[in-house]
Amino acid sequence: MPIYNAPTKDTQFLLHDVLKISQSDIPGYNELDADFTGAILEEAGKISSNVLHPLNVVGDTEGCRLENGVVRTPTGFKEAFEEVKAGGWTGLDMPEEFGGQNMPYVMGTAVGEMFSASNSAFTMYQGLTHGAASAILAHGTDEQKNTYLPKMVSCDWTGTMNLTEPHCGTDLGLMRSKAEPQADGSYKITGQKIFISSGDHDMADNIVHLVLAKIVGGPEGIKGVSLFIVPKYIVNEDGSLGDRNPATVGKIEEKMGIHGNSTCVMNYDGAVGYLLGEEHKGMRAMFTMMNEARLGVGMQGLCQADAAYQNAVEYAKDRLQGRAVTGVQNPEGPADPLIVHPDIRRNLMDQKSFIEGARAFILWGASMIDAAHRKGDKDADGLISLLTPVIKGFLTDEGYDMTVQAQQVYGGHGYIEEWGMSQYTRDARIAMIYEGANGVQALDLVGRKLAADGGKHVMAFFEMVKSYIKENSGQDEAFDRDFLEPLKAASKDLQAAGMYFMQNATNPNNALSGSYDFMHMFGHVCLGLMWARMGKASLDALANGAEDKAFYETKLTTGRFYMARRLPATAMHLTRIQSGGDTVMSLDAVNF
Amino acid sequence: MPIYNAPTKDTQFLLHDVLKISQSDIPGYNELDADFTGAILEEAGKISSNVLHPLNVVGDTEGCRLENGVVRTPTGFKEAFEEVKAGGWTGLDMPEEFGGQNMPYVMGTAVGEMFSASNSAFTMYQGLTHGAASAILAHGTDEQKNTYLPKMVSCDWTGTMNLTEPHCGTDLGLMRSKAEPQADGSYKITGQKIFISSGDHDMADNIVHLVLAKIVGGPEGIKGVSLFIVPKYIVNEDGSLGDRNPATVGKIEEKMGIHGNSTCVMNYDGAVGYLLGEEHKGMRAMFTMMNEARLGVGMQGLCQADAAYQNAVEYAKDRLQGRAVTGVQNPEGPADPLIVHPDIRRNLMDQKSFIEGARAFILWGASMIDAAHRKGDKDADGLISLLTPVIKGFLTDEGYDMTVQAQQVYGGHGYIEEWGMSQYTRDARIAMIYEGANGVQALDLVGRKLAADGGKHVMAFFEMVKSYIKENSGQDEAFDRDFLEPLKAASKDLQAAGMYFMQNATNPNNALSGSYDFMHMFGHVCLGLMWARMGKASLDALANGAEDKAFYETKLTTGRFYMARRLPATAMHLTRIQSGGDTVMSLDAVNF
Repeated sequence: MPIYNAPTKDTQFLLHDVLKISQSDIPGYNELDADFTGAILEEAGKISSNVLHPLNVVGDTEGCRLENGVVRTPTGFKEAFEEVKAGGWTGLDMPEEFGGQNMPYVMGTAVGEMFSASNSAFTMYQGLTHGAASAILAHGTDEQKNTYLPKMVSCDWTGTMNLTEPHCGTDLGLMRSKAEPQADGSYKITGQKIFISSGDHDMADNIVHLVLAKIVGGPEGIKGVSLFIVPKYIVNEDGSLGDRNPATVGKIEEKMGIHGNSTCVMNYDGAVGYLLGEEHKGMRAMFTMMNEARLGVGMQGLCQADAAYQNAVEYAKDRLQGRAVTGVQNPEGPADPLIVHPDIRRNLMDQKSFIEGARAFILWGASMIDAAHRKGDKDADGLISLLTPVIKGFLTDEGYDMTVQAQQVYGGHGYIEEWGMSQYTRDARIAMIYEGANGVQALDLVGRKLAADGGKHVMAFFEMVKSYIKENSGQDEAFDRDFLEPLKAASKDLQAAGMYFMQNATNPNNALSGSYDFMHMFGHVCLGLMWARMGKASLDALANGAEDKAFYETKLTTGRFYMARRLPATAMHLTRIQSGGDTVMSLDAVNF
Repeated sequence: MPIYNAPTKDTQFLLHDVLKISQSDIPGYNELDADFTGAILEEAGKISSNVLHPLNVVGDTEGCRLENGVVRTPTGFKEAFEEVKAGGWTGLDMPEEFGGQNMPYVMGTAVGEMFSASNSAFTMYQGLTHGAASAILAHGTDEQKNTYLPKMVSCDWTGTMNLTEPHCGTDLGLMRSKAEPQADGSYKITGQKIFISSGDHDMADNIVHLVLAKIVGGPEGIKGVSLFIVPKYIVNEDGSLGDRNPATVGKIEEKMGIHGNSTCVMNYDGAVGYLLGEEHKGMRAMFTMMNEARLGVGMQGLCQADAAYQNAVEYAKDRLQGRAVTGVQNPEGPADPLIVHPDIRRNLMDQKSFIEGARAFILWGASMIDAAHRKGDKDADGLISLLTPVIKGFLTDEGYDMTVQAQQVYGGHGYIEEWGMSQYTRDARIAMIYEGANGVQALDLVGRKLAADGGKHVMAFFEMVKSYIKENSGQDEAFDRDFLEPLKAASKDLQAAGMYFMQNATNPNNALSGSYDFMHMFGHVCLGLMWARMGKASLDALANGAEDKAFYETKLTTGRFYMARRLPATAMHLTRIQSGGDTVMSLDAVNF
């Protein structure tokens, strides 16, 4: 049975030593002192480890079942869902007027990491609801808000997002689902949607489907797509539940992982729908939530990696196999623990340095979303929009790789299901795909975000890195050498790649052939920046006589590892990019 | 339903244009002209695509079942096994005196690729038998050979290899299974073995287990391990089957993949065993087969990657999504096929260039094994011993990554089991683990093989690359620039890494912290060398007026891609290695 311990201490370090959130002028942040956030994280950690985590394997093993049109979730899910609801966790960062606690998004994110790491499939029921509720919050009428939000904030009703159809996922302009206007102002929705996470289940009284469809007679392609609220049960005027809407489950998909979440084919057969936001502006309504949703998926890369890592460390300390090459370290035992072996450490350090860097990146990103939403900070909004595809694409790719590495520590025991390590890789795999496959993230980054607002945001990013290096150099020679110099070099690589794209823009294939490499090198630079900031915060803490020296010294060692062993990947990505698009594009399709 | 097409044309190109096998002086190679090998490969391709491949998904879905102590294989496996046996495929490269066809190992390998790519789990029943038979061939008495080999070559009886125990895998010195000498010269074997592939099943009359155990009273640790033949049914003097040996299945493991193969816990409760080879020399007997076995597993990385790639290409050509950035390419359709998009091509070219390079590497490796075994070529033996961990570790890591990339082309459809892409990654994952986990391969490479025979073989490798470059440069400017220069640079990186290890050998952690990177950079250099050789062969063919121009031009384009986009990874690995062991080793275990 795998273990999971919530990273409360590390999260506190990031919130207070690195991001110094309670000193921020973002509305709501001044209440977030260390005692307050610590208390919340402690409680979230408890429910994660004690309630959600024990159901993770259960969900994987049992999966969801479709019985007479009704989806049954795995044993224990419903009880756990009630416990999460009762604790008020579902509305943590939702407005008070709809029953939430109105905390900043950064807190919702810190808690969300623990929930998702302890049980990803389970937490998706809540996560999709959060996304759907956010869309209603941003685009709904007052009536829609009052009808749906209180129930969704409490998760008495859950939500879904319906975009994909059998013949179109990324290219939603090809959509066939249609919406026919009715005399009463509602629409009749007809069509089939696939890959609908949490599409149906037995844990909520109602399910609020947000469905993209084309209003009959509207514009062609993506410009004719609108967003609709399609409840499983029609809500009567008094708030009670009325007729069953013809929005039914066609089947549950058999998947590689996240078995505990019901991934449904949804059939809409003239279902009653209500326009959410403006006609034909469905994509815009969806995209409002995109930064948050993609940050959430990026976080899943971190989550699965951390859960897998924690177990790999335990195994590496426990399993006795071979002797340290520099001399016996466990003379009383028949062999030394795996963790003495350099390649096992290389593997674990890869994981550790990624996980802690990713956690910093995610929380920094969440704080930018707060700055944008709560303070109206346009620069923060621009920067997080730029970084969103990096967070989503890089963290899920790397997070997946790290689950594979964690599995590898177990040898053959990592391949059998008994130890639970296979589940982490199988569950992590989806994050590279959904909410925009990672290739699409790279395209979004290079094809759209780089040039957005005249390239202002990427220039601001480089300026920020440069300023950071300038402001923090010359104080500690080792820090300059181990942290700032590698960061400078990596940032220069990234700039050179951007320059290459600009200088070779005549043929856009040059840039787009390098988009995936660019996304990864950007991710490395961001993690490098995070490690520099964490390293500096650790030096400061040590200089200020911090009690837990080992914690801060471990941070510095882990950061040095990342800077020396992972960050230099930027040079390789640059070389690939600068080789241009010819070798990528010149083969005729028939010759593949 | 996935497709699989055997790579007959590519294999023929490698055997005849690149390796020029029929001109070799390795005994048996002169018979291998293009017509002969082509006929064999055609037939092997047919049985792969028509018989084995259709059962691949069946095996994954049904898995093996343990019923009253007997393992039932998936529907259709037994019939297919009979067909493979009837075709004489099981003894292709086995000696004629035991019913084989005595072909060189390179042919067994070329055919084995097709079998394994079309159905990995199925082909393991035959593969393990081949391994066990090879051990008996190398170390058995005449009586043992005559008793077991004819039945094993025909696969009427199959074989297994029993090494791992619950508490020890890599470190077999910890082994507890014991062998008690009996008056009649046999032994009583007692102990539990785990992860026994093909451990039991319903497709053979008898199963010949090769079991490592310690003879009671023998030396401690690995020096007291001996190898035993433990048949499921005792073989009577007349060759008929006698008593059931107490060698029974404890359970079948639930695994991430290769569900069609029965991975068994085997319990030996005083089972009758016969010493194979010398007392206490069990590891040596096992290691005799190691180069072949590890090359076979390395090949599985290639196999799963190729099978996954073929499907990804079809999907990328078929699936319409979005428009090419440089202008509409499919004006009649609602969208362009995926394959027009640069990042999809980048992805597919990664796969294609790996697969074709890996195939060359595998067949080159097999030809070295033939040179060593059939010609007694000590240099070939030394070189393939050096390269074996590279073949196993690099090709399975990369092969797995490529299945993940192939799956990614499908978007959400890659994550559901319906399309079969998940199976390729799940099946590919085991190859990184068994037959020595890849970290152990890296350790073997850097800790043992590099310095073997005074470093003679690695020096010979560098010399070979250097000579190759020298002999082939100055004839074609583009070839020098696109192939030879990158190969030279990568080879220099590899040499610099080896130099770093030597210069920093005071602390062995410096080398061992870089072992994994070294294994990967060595793999890239080998694939670079293969691509140079394939590129040169293609130029020669074109110069000689080859009919199928597109084939050779595609080779050149694919090779240029590898050289420009993949090979430069060596520089990154070198940087990591040269950063030393400190960042890897300096954390106390408690701080992970």
